[in-house]
Amino acid sequence: MRKVYLDNASTTSLIPEVREAMLPYINEYYGNPSCIHEWGDAPRDALENARSIVAQLVGAEDSEEIIFTSCGTESNNFAIKGLAIAQQNKGKHIILSAIEHFSVLNSARTLEKMGFELTILPVDINGLISPDDVKKAVRKDTILVSIMHANGEVGTIEPLEDIAKITKSNNIIFHTDAVATAGTIPLNVKEIGVDCLSMSSNQFYGPKGIGALWVRRGVRIIPLLDGGVQEGGRRGGTENVPAIVGMGKAAELAIIHMDERAKYLIPLRDRLLKELPSFIKHVRVTGHPYKRLPGHASFCIEFIEGEAMLMLLNSQGIAVTSGSACTSRALKASHVLIAMGLTHAVAQGSLLFSFGINNNKEDVDYVLETLPPIVERLREMSPLWDKFKKSDKGDN
Amino acid sequence: MRKVYLDNASTTSLIPEVREAMLPYINEYYGNPSCIHEWGDAPRDALENARSIVAQLVGAEDSEEIIFTSCGTESNNFAIKGLAIAQQNKGKHIILSAIEHFSVLNSARTLEKMGFELTILPVDINGLISPDDVKKAVRKDTILVSIMHANGEVGTIEPLEDIAKITKSNNIIFHTDAVATAGTIPLNVKEIGVDCLSMSSNQFYGPKGIGALWVRRGVRIIPLLDGGVQEGGRRGGTENVPAIVGMGKAAELAIIHMDERAKYLIPLRDRLLKELPSFIKHVRVTGHPYKRLPGHASFCIEFIEGEAMLMLLNSQGIAVTSGSACTSRALKASHVLIAMGLTHAVAQGSLLFSFGINNNKEDVDYVLETLPPIVERLREMSPLWDKFKKSDKGDN
Repeated sequence: MRKVYLDNASTTSLIPEVREAMLPYINEYYGNPSCIHEWGDAPRDALENARSIVAQLVGAEDSEEIIFTSCGTESNNFAIKGLAIAQQNKGKHIILSAIEHFSVLNSARTLEKMGFELTILPVDINGLISPDDVKKAVRKDTILVSIMHANGEVGTIEPLEDIAKITKSNNIIFHTDAVATAGTIPLNVKEIGVDCLSMSSNQFYGPKGIGALWVRRGVRIIPLLDGGVQEGGRRGGTENVPAIVGMGKAAELAIIHMDERAKYLIPLRDRLLKELPSFIKHVRVTGHPYKRLPGHASFCIEFIEGEAMLMLLNSQGIAVTSGSACTSRALKASHVLIAMGLTHAVAQGSLLFSFGINNNKEDVDYVLETLPPIVERLREMSPLWDKFKKSDKGDN
Repeated sequence: MRKVYLDNASTTSLIPEVREAMLPYINEYYGNPSCIHEWGDAPRDALENARSIVAQLVGAEDSEEIIFTSCGTESNNFAIKGLAIAQQNKGKHIILSAIEHFSVLNSARTLEKMGFELTILPVDINGLISPDDVKKAVRKDTILVSIMHANGEVGTIEPLEDIAKITKSNNIIFHTDAVATAGTIPLNVKEIGVDCLSMSSNQFYGPKGIGALWVRRGVRIIPLLDGGVQEGGRRGGTENVPAIVGMGKAAELAIIHMDERAKYLIPLRDRLLKELPSFIKHVRVTGHPYKRLPGHASFCIEFIEGEAMLMLLNSQGIAVTSGSACTSRALKASHVLIAMGLTHAVAQGSLLFSFGINNNKEDVDYVLETLPPIVERLREMSPLWDKFKKSDKGDN
């Protein structure tokens, strides 16, 4: 059977070149980079080299502004908790959006229990946050704004530059969760105007178990992992050298190939976005029509549960997701789709196809040929569909 | 030149079998274990298999009591902060020892800033904590005791069973940092009587970037990394599957070979502990004479700075450390040695030789032949030595 992996938003695969770069640090160069003897030298050099490439990936001025973490979730926890607690003498009000990843939302909820106040901004039907809403939400005691760069479930890219103008003129720290964008689309922290940015290696063909946080020089942040003097005293723990080397190599390849990858992915995405609704009735494209991630095609297929489609697609060799991987086992309607104004019934039918560099147009053909009979079969069993057909709207 | 790695306390190397177990999960089985489609199956099975072996390593009843983290430091931060905050309605007093790792000590300091109170217990000249001191320190509002299983700098193994009797009879949660012991010496959480235990894979020939926390079923703990539903909702973030598989394999090998490894290491350690003081004058063995880690030989060589010896040993191909790897770049006298009652001057001359399964008796020969002339050379340049020789005690 044809095997089609279309779940690159959950995790990408590893590029062989990245793996080759990592292997020497799994094998011979096993030393602890904090050690002063020669076993620490090669790992330490590799660590600092990776730091410098990751800095370059996001346009950071100084590689010391990069702190390696264990994943995007740690980066987001570190940012939200570490920035808020560091600024709490100035105030305790935080602004974020309703479609943030749970690592941002739940970190903010934890702070709320400690006496911080949250303003959670709505989004429009395309998943866009309005800079005007940010402006209106700003208070004298606002110390932190956290708005994601792009949403991993619906692909919408947010207007960070416009939001940054507001945070700058109000002297508020601005963090962005760029897990879905760093290594995927061009990104320059200075041009955007943020103060802190989260990223994750396994979103751009690097290894799992490694992420990074960029923190602008001069911005105070409290460590999440107290301990030794690693990472400039900002993150304790023996550095995960092989994974850091892998992230560095993946960043290097992302810098070189970003444009060509996007040019390759966008036509695959656009064909699916355009053609799926003509193959299947009652399909909505979710997310912004064009301000979206290059490999990202998301839909709600009405009158069906996403999970059931996912299972049947899986039985035909196609891997997709319904909502984010982090919550896929929770079987709840996506908080992102609900925030965009979709009903629970429609949001249940969500399907996300995320393309990667290993996909090709035959994969799109296979989806367009495989999904319609699955939808037809499931709708036949669906009481919602039955009810809909019997209603006046059934002839639409 | 002969190359002798005697810094296994900073990190061990990876056993080739562990690497082989990891590679398929770096390559073909790259899926996210949270995914419902088939790409998630093999990673998820591997994850749960590793969890079960790690549970077995520490004698845990239920593999769901194991939460994977990114390192020993994360495990310690998670335990100290997560347990204390979960119990804070009962009280805000925490007992720990003066020789805990900085990931424990500094986590407790962070809690102190949030209104918790700390009692930091002393140790004796051998680095032993007295259960009696724990008993005396217990208050009505004591909610957590954290005492390490063995100290990574001086190798002393602490009397946890006796301490556990006190915490149990007072209904206090007992956490132990077992980073230096898990996978190295036999360890059974039920027999010891602790409630929570930290471990790290790179201490027993597993990969870096992965650790675990065992939390007894029924003990409440607040997540350190808020996010998705991974690890039973207790630790967000995409699981680092290759590293987890590696930790599982390393745990499996540790279970099989623990006894034979100890039998191999103890004679190497004991020979160095016994003979070094006869090759060099004014050398003190640090740590307990026999209640110590099997591969662990630590000394203070008087009238010299440890860093200088470390550099010259390095130039002869020998890797050792002076203090812990996490602080070796901070160039301060070890808080452990100071707590044991050594003066700053003596503590400066600390040297730690930590043997691993790749060492042999020729390595001990080489150290015994290489170190004495280095010490002699450095002492000739040392004003402290000069002063000592001119004093009355010089003839000792």
